[in-house]
Amino acid sequence: MEKMRRSERIILLTRELIENPHKSFPLTYFAELFHAAKSSISEDLSIIKEALRMSGAGLVETQVGAAGGVRFMPLMAKGEREQFANHLCQRLSGSERIVPGGFIYLTDIIFDPQVGQKIGRIFTSLFVEANPDYILTIETKGIPLALLTARAFGVPLVIVRDESKVSEGSSVSINYVSGSTRRIQTMALARRALPRGSRVLIIDDFMKAGGTAKGMLDLMAEFEAEVLGTGVLISTAEPQQKLVDNYISLLELAHFDEDKKEFLIRPSKWISQTFPWESDNQ
Amino acid sequence: MEKMRRSERIILLTRELIENPHKSFPLTYFAELFHAAKSSISEDLSIIKEALRMSGAGLVETQVGAAGGVRFMPLMAKGEREQFANHLCQRLSGSERIVPGGFIYLTDIIFDPQVGQKIGRIFTSLFVEANPDYILTIETKGIPLALLTARAFGVPLVIVRDESKVSEGSSVSINYVSGSTRRIQTMALARRALPRGSRVLIIDDFMKAGGTAKGMLDLMAEFEAEVLGTGVLISTAEPQQKLVDNYISLLELAHFDEDKKEFLIRPSKWISQTFPWESDNQ
Repeated sequence: MEKMRRSERIILLTRELIENPHKSFPLTYFAELFHAAKSSISEDLSIIKEALRMSGAGLVETQVGAAGGVRFMPLMAKGEREQFANHLCQRLSGSERIVPGGFIYLTDIIFDPQVGQKIGRIFTSLFVEANPDYILTIETKGIPLALLTARAFGVPLVIVRDESKVSEGSSVSINYVSGSTRRIQTMALARRALPRGSRVLIIDDFMKAGGTAKGMLDLMAEFEAEVLGTGVLISTAEPQQKLVDNYISLLELAHFDEDKKEFLIRPSKWISQTFPWESDNQ
Repeated sequence: MEKMRRSERIILLTRELIENPHKSFPLTYFAELFHAAKSSISEDLSIIKEALRMSGAGLVETQVGAAGGVRFMPLMAKGEREQFANHLCQRLSGSERIVPGGFIYLTDIIFDPQVGQKIGRIFTSLFVEANPDYILTIETKGIPLALLTARAFGVPLVIVRDESKVSEGSSVSINYVSGSTRRIQTMALARRALPRGSRVLIIDDFMKAGGTAKGMLDLMAEFEAEVLGTGVLISTAEPQQKLVDNYISLLELAHFDEDKKEFLIRPSKWISQTFPWESDNQ
């Protein structure tokens, strides 16, 4: 690539950072790619850093020193989080979403990558200190949200299966009682899917009693993994006491009456927390 | 947001386009957001367009007229596709990947969002004319690749389930014979998951005989959907004659000997196709 103007460098730098969240790039990588001095790249990056910070899109972090580099942490500021949570609640309303069996149809929303990507940015914002090695979820409906959260954290996804799959080698399985079905079920994870001692953040679409999340906690104990927290899109107001403690949800199912075909989903208390990184950003 | 300098506008424009592939933004949206004239936004966009085109990241498309807007189509040029496919083949080699039962362990690679995102860009490149309304896959292992392909196309994902799930209302199910297990299996899709007459692109991780892909074709006929093609990460060289015609794969499993613990994965012929959009880009 020949030498380019600052505006072109800024565009391609922005692209690399946005496209690869949490990936650390050495300054020399960009200096070589763009045939530019490291000092020029540094100046470019400070312009990008300020623009992205002001717009609430996230933080550009530069590490100095020999191992110095730059990475972009996608975040979502409080105002945008609240607006987006309200928008989701609106999309999630309406009695036609009630499915026989007492479920709410969420699939159109949680399988939409543009929605999932925003949810991923909210999870990076609320778990900004977590620094996970892996995002963990259980098949099937939590996968899209968990994957886009993994993307935002720049780490791989690990999917717990609901039975042992032959194509993944030896696995560890445990039994658990799911809150929604009240039946004993099995979840399993291939031994090679997760190195011992990993730092793990659990992401799922829905939590009622927390039986599934508790099962994943127990499974993680078998892998000697540290569970940094659990994030779900929707938790139910009842039962108030879940089987896991350290969780957050973005929305809350406050009321559900299948007979009257009525329910109410509203933003959770966690959406409106304020974090140090956004204090001068509102 | 107050009036900003061109460099800031360019950064935030680039971010919006990269973060929302295939999403069409009216110029007035950016003009209002940045308190700038539409002519200034147009100039910004032509700088961005040229930089992204030159780097092979994709095409910025501007539509003129009253409904005029701009969108970014992420693509990957031939050189980068070949390099990435070779890199994947290298990562996929090694007898320790052979899992009892005659499978190859792929999970670490296909559940990595940075890999999946690149694969999504390859699928948008190879299906550049397809213009799907939905990406379709079947649970579980194809989901991450399919979701990141859906993201790159800016459309929702639809996941076929391997049995009828109670939480999604009435569904259509069909029986099919999977090439790998040789057993009759059931796949199902909720009626409300896909509007009649949709244009659908199928994405999955692996194809042997094509029984699963054929099943999805039959299921799509029930939804009166138009299937634009099928893309898989890896197809096997044998059997040469698959149960579906209109498919492409990124890699090919050319040889597999479980007893000798040997196999060979190589880039497919499709990776090295040249497309009109990249003809002046190499």
